[in-house]
Amino acid sequence: MIQIAILGFGVVGGGITEVLEQNKAALQRMVHDEIRVKYILDRLEFPDSPYGDRVVHDMSVIANDPEVSIVCETMGGAGAAFDFTMQAIRGGKSVVTSNKELVAKRGVEILAAAKEMGVSYLCEASVGGGIPQIRGMRTSLAGDTITAIDGIMNGTTNYILTRMRQDGATFEAALKEAQTLGYAEANPSADVDGLDAQRKIMILTAIATNMLADEKDVYTETMTKITPADMDAAARWGGTVKLLGSSRIGDGHASLYVCPFFVPGTSPLANIDDVYNGIRFVSPVTADVMYYGRGAGRLPTAGAVVSDVVAAACGLAEKELPMDWQKAPEGYVLPFSENTFSYYVRVKTDAVRETLEKASLVFGDIKTLPDSPTGYAEFITPPTVESEAEHAFAGDTFAGLESRIRIMPA
Amino acid sequence: MIQIAILGFGVVGGGITEVLEQNKAALQRMVHDEIRVKYILDRLEFPDSPYGDRVVHDMSVIANDPEVSIVCETMGGAGAAFDFTMQAIRGGKSVVTSNKELVAKRGVEILAAAKEMGVSYLCEASVGGGIPQIRGMRTSLAGDTITAIDGIMNGTTNYILTRMRQDGATFEAALKEAQTLGYAEANPSADVDGLDAQRKIMILTAIATNMLADEKDVYTETMTKITPADMDAAARWGGTVKLLGSSRIGDGHASLYVCPFFVPGTSPLANIDDVYNGIRFVSPVTADVMYYGRGAGRLPTAGAVVSDVVAAACGLAEKELPMDWQKAPEGYVLPFSENTFSYYVRVKTDAVRETLEKASLVFGDIKTLPDSPTGYAEFITPPTVESEAEHAFAGDTFAGLESRIRIMPA
Repeated sequence: MIQIAILGFGVVGGGITEVLEQNKAALQRMVHDEIRVKYILDRLEFPDSPYGDRVVHDMSVIANDPEVSIVCETMGGAGAAFDFTMQAIRGGKSVVTSNKELVAKRGVEILAAAKEMGVSYLCEASVGGGIPQIRGMRTSLAGDTITAIDGIMNGTTNYILTRMRQDGATFEAALKEAQTLGYAEANPSADVDGLDAQRKIMILTAIATNMLADEKDVYTETMTKITPADMDAAARWGGTVKLLGSSRIGDGHASLYVCPFFVPGTSPLANIDDVYNGIRFVSPVTADVMYYGRGAGRLPTAGAVVSDVVAAACGLAEKELPMDWQKAPEGYVLPFSENTFSYYVRVKTDAVRETLEKASLVFGDIKTLPDSPTGYAEFITPPTVESEAEHAFAGDTFAGLESRIRIMPA
Repeated sequence: MIQIAILGFGVVGGGITEVLEQNKAALQRMVHDEIRVKYILDRLEFPDSPYGDRVVHDMSVIANDPEVSIVCETMGGAGAAFDFTMQAIRGGKSVVTSNKELVAKRGVEILAAAKEMGVSYLCEASVGGGIPQIRGMRTSLAGDTITAIDGIMNGTTNYILTRMRQDGATFEAALKEAQTLGYAEANPSADVDGLDAQRKIMILTAIATNMLADEKDVYTETMTKITPADMDAAARWGGTVKLLGSSRIGDGHASLYVCPFFVPGTSPLANIDDVYNGIRFVSPVTADVMYYGRGAGRLPTAGAVVSDVVAAACGLAEKELPMDWQKAPEGYVLPFSENTFSYYVRVKTDAVRETLEKASLVFGDIKTLPDSPTGYAEFITPPTVESEAEHAFAGDTFAGLESRIRIMPA
């Protein structure tokens, strides 16, 4: 019997009990043992739940019970969740988590403690809901060298962008719809301003490199400024707009960023719609592999937690690529200003030809878009170093600048 | 030191040595040991290769060398490859393979022998080239219950169908192009007639269920009859034509088939083009997950072989979901005639209205397509049991029947 505890009996925590019941046979086939929920830690009581009698309010009950071998942390936040995680690990328990904030902020210390105690700290559910990309990186892709990661990592923003593309909706209208459907929070900032995706690209890059970036080094741009006019331009260009979390990994350095990009229609990422996520890895041997699936939701996320419980219970986790994370040293993450991107640019102007001529002088070989609306100069710049692009856009050379969006680099 | 042998020094076999050299550091990080090629078994000599001195011509040299712990079989075929695989396993070596024919035909006996000897028989490279879907099924999805698999599993036919869709090419012209590019063999039957995809869906279904179907029970339809007119119809319907390997898995039974399908544009499978493969798994918890990547090619396939070498070398393979395959008993695989599909149908006729009326009488609630070419009746049937559909199409009710293609079921 494998006895586990669940910290936080909310949407994901409740889902875990459901997944364990629903998939009993399949789990038994993998673990060769029964998995039983011994405790649930929550502030509330759940008198009507069949698990009501397992609710405790004191973490030390769990941490000190030698029968509990695995703890599922689904509380969220980096406060009490951190303390309880460390208590569990020091009590000799493996911890599996869906808490991306905690992994991104304190992953280095938690993993060091887990290593010291000879237990696992696993975080499949912290990225991409039910999509098993972390286990994939630590098993299948582990003998390869990942050089690039690009992902639609946030279902809420992808839903909003899909509505904008398909229905011509404004950001505000699409957000409202997402809120009505429960896909977006009343305060949607963590999603739409890219914070959620930022944490996820930090985690995936750390799994590929063992270097956890500081969030201040991960350039993160909001997608709230994307307009129907941008969507229309992207379509005329032959693609669409997606919010991507990306990293480019070199030898001894990496570049991490989250921003809206023009994605060409030929990219598999362009066709990932609604709340789905897709995460693509590039490496010299495997070439490119993409994982696609539901990036959020009660059961997919709970299922990812359970897959980590299984990995810890059957000893799989110990055989995966080790997560010996370090804090990325100064200079490991390259300044965003050193990256090179092509830009889509739209300028409101009565002097279209002159503006395009100016753009050619500033950027070199620009390309125009078909069917630009009257009164607008639209162009795609050649690849330009970010600091130079910023400089060009900052002055009044392009007075009337209405939009500039980076093109996803190859 | 982990010493390995490679059987067959062709495209994939040669790629293995390249991957081992190229990814030395990443492999070391995973295996904590050096992987060295001790022998290469081939009929030829390779005097100019740096591996020339390791070539042997007698399998017993490898099977009897206790220093060799892992054998990579990349010979292909189910003759000598079977004998050598069994020799290696009886010699106490784990075997990893890219040989889908052998896995699909003799997987049950080979896995039983491997179990008896306490070694692994691993076949990641037999399906989907570099795409790690088998490891995914045996680790991440292992605690879930897979109920459906749909995949574009053959890169050659996907290339041909992509050319037909994008360029309006005929099958024959697109095949010729694929042959020129080296994507299709001089005799393309195994690809275009679905045999390759048949083996792959047999393998994936066996991993999900532990039941290996007999190939005679896997309905397999050629894609050579798809025409530009079919592609055009699929586009007007809102999708495209793809050759899919599919299975639907129930409690104690399964249905496996390979045929061309109309795939709706909203399906992620519709947007997988060229030689790429995509394989989608449906399960109650994870919902749906798709793996996407290069389905073939020297390095991706060799990389998949190496990922199995790594799994065997570091003990990961022992912790994965066991592959205790049995021969599927009589009745486990449902007759294809019991399946239910909607059909796209095109009939050349001067009496379009009468044909559509007849179709309504035969099938019930049919739907027509927009912009049908003059002189053709086109319709989509409601879901119809396959045996009834066959009956309806067999008579002369639809004289002038030019095409009928199934619609991918949800």
